[in-house]
Amino acid sequence: MPNIEVCLTPALMDNFEVTNKTVIVIDVLRATSTFATGLYNGLVSIVPVAEVARAKELAAKGMITAGEREGKKIEGLAHGNSPTEYLDPYFKGKTLAMTTTNGTKCIALSLGAAAIYTVSFNNLDASTLHLASSNSDILILCSGWKDRFNHEDTWCAGAIVNALSATHTPTNDAATAAAMLYDNVKNNLQAAAKNISHYKRLAGNGVNIIDIEWCFTLNNAPVVVKLVDDTLVVV
Amino acid sequence: MPNIEVCLTPALMDNFEVTNKTVIVIDVLRATSTFATGLYNGLVSIVPVAEVARAKELAAKGMITAGEREGKKIEGLAHGNSPTEYLDPYFKGKTLAMTTTNGTKCIALSLGAAAIYTVSFNNLDASTLHLASSNSDILILCSGWKDRFNHEDTWCAGAIVNALSATHTPTNDAATAAAMLYDNVKNNLQAAAKNISHYKRLAGNGVNIIDIEWCFTLNNAPVVVKLVDDTLVVV
Repeated sequence: MPNIEVCLTPALMDNFEVTNKTVIVIDVLRATSTFATGLYNGLVSIVPVAEVARAKELAAKGMITAGEREGKKIEGLAHGNSPTEYLDPYFKGKTLAMTTTNGTKCIALSLGAAAIYTVSFNNLDASTLHLASSNSDILILCSGWKDRFNHEDTWCAGAIVNALSATHTPTNDAATAAAMLYDNVKNNLQAAAKNISHYKRLAGNGVNIIDIEWCFTLNNAPVVVKLVDDTLVVV
Repeated sequence: MPNIEVCLTPALMDNFEVTNKTVIVIDVLRATSTFATGLYNGLVSIVPVAEVARAKELAAKGMITAGEREGKKIEGLAHGNSPTEYLDPYFKGKTLAMTTTNGTKCIALSLGAAAIYTVSFNNLDASTLHLASSNSDILILCSGWKDRFNHEDTWCAGAIVNALSATHTPTNDAATAAAMLYDNVKNNLQAAAKNISHYKRLAGNGVNIIDIEWCFTLNNAPVVVKLVDDTLVVV
């Protein structure tokens, strides 16, 4: 049975190899939630970029642009990192260049893997159903917050470990701990979410509470999101 | 109320400041368990050193020496890192120079703190009773295993966070997660311990099972262990 491991923050990625592995990137608040939501609701693809300047270059090529730093929109980019913003029919059929604090950083750290997926609570079951048939080892990379451990990405990692327990063996302590932590909150996820530091931080920054609640709602954007040639698409 | 934070592995210490804080170093398997056990059973003091060569220099000055790498004794040092080895009356009144894989590394990372303590399950209540009266912020540093997250140090960190909940507010997600993880195992600690990767690794290396069980026994070495002038002593 292939293995499944969890890396709790990007700062610990030196401890892991990605070669021949399937890497799952998680950034619940809010990059990977926005990826799933936008693609489910009609975006053709999302190009994740690290630098704001690169997003602006792609805008010149006709893409629409989005980005955030510290949970706030970026001057000069048209859209933000709010998943519910992407429910607007305006986005159907468009390609989005998006820069985020953590999401793009984690994708960059995963390059060289056999496959890279992005997962959130919004596309949890669709993703794990797809990944259950994978024969390769899986490494789940939690974006965390500024290289720190955070609850929400760890919970989502634990949900994946649990969902794949019949097909992938958890082989590091972080994987079994994440599974245990998710078990503690899974029946009360929205309430648990309101107690986490990142929730309070985003709410304090004026981020819409409905938007944050969206990120802790399971399977409201049921698509499998994969990085194909530097672009996130539905597979 | 002062804060309490948890750093899950030494690789994440860049995220934390130690100035003006009380740092608690944890290495359940087995450095900090051995520190508590040895000092409770009569060692006058323990000098933690990073390098084997330094331990040998101190041997030339009359100290007895101990050390391990990868859970095994080191050639040329007289004793190992087995806590139960230090139950022998031979050690009473002696000073030990000890090098360990993780314990000494974590102490080195904590230098500059207002105070440094080492804690294990063996001296849990004695330590938390002492620290409850501390007015300074506390940072708990888990040694982990080769810079990776591990269960046993996180559980011990969580036990400390729980024990100090009336006097110190947990302020990072790692602290509240550790507390949650300890709550899951606290009523069944020995059984939970047998499932962790480090337990299996040490047992596979021929480490005495009784020795490992000792490390998961609460309050069998009830002393407060503090670093004073580069030396661990009972306070």
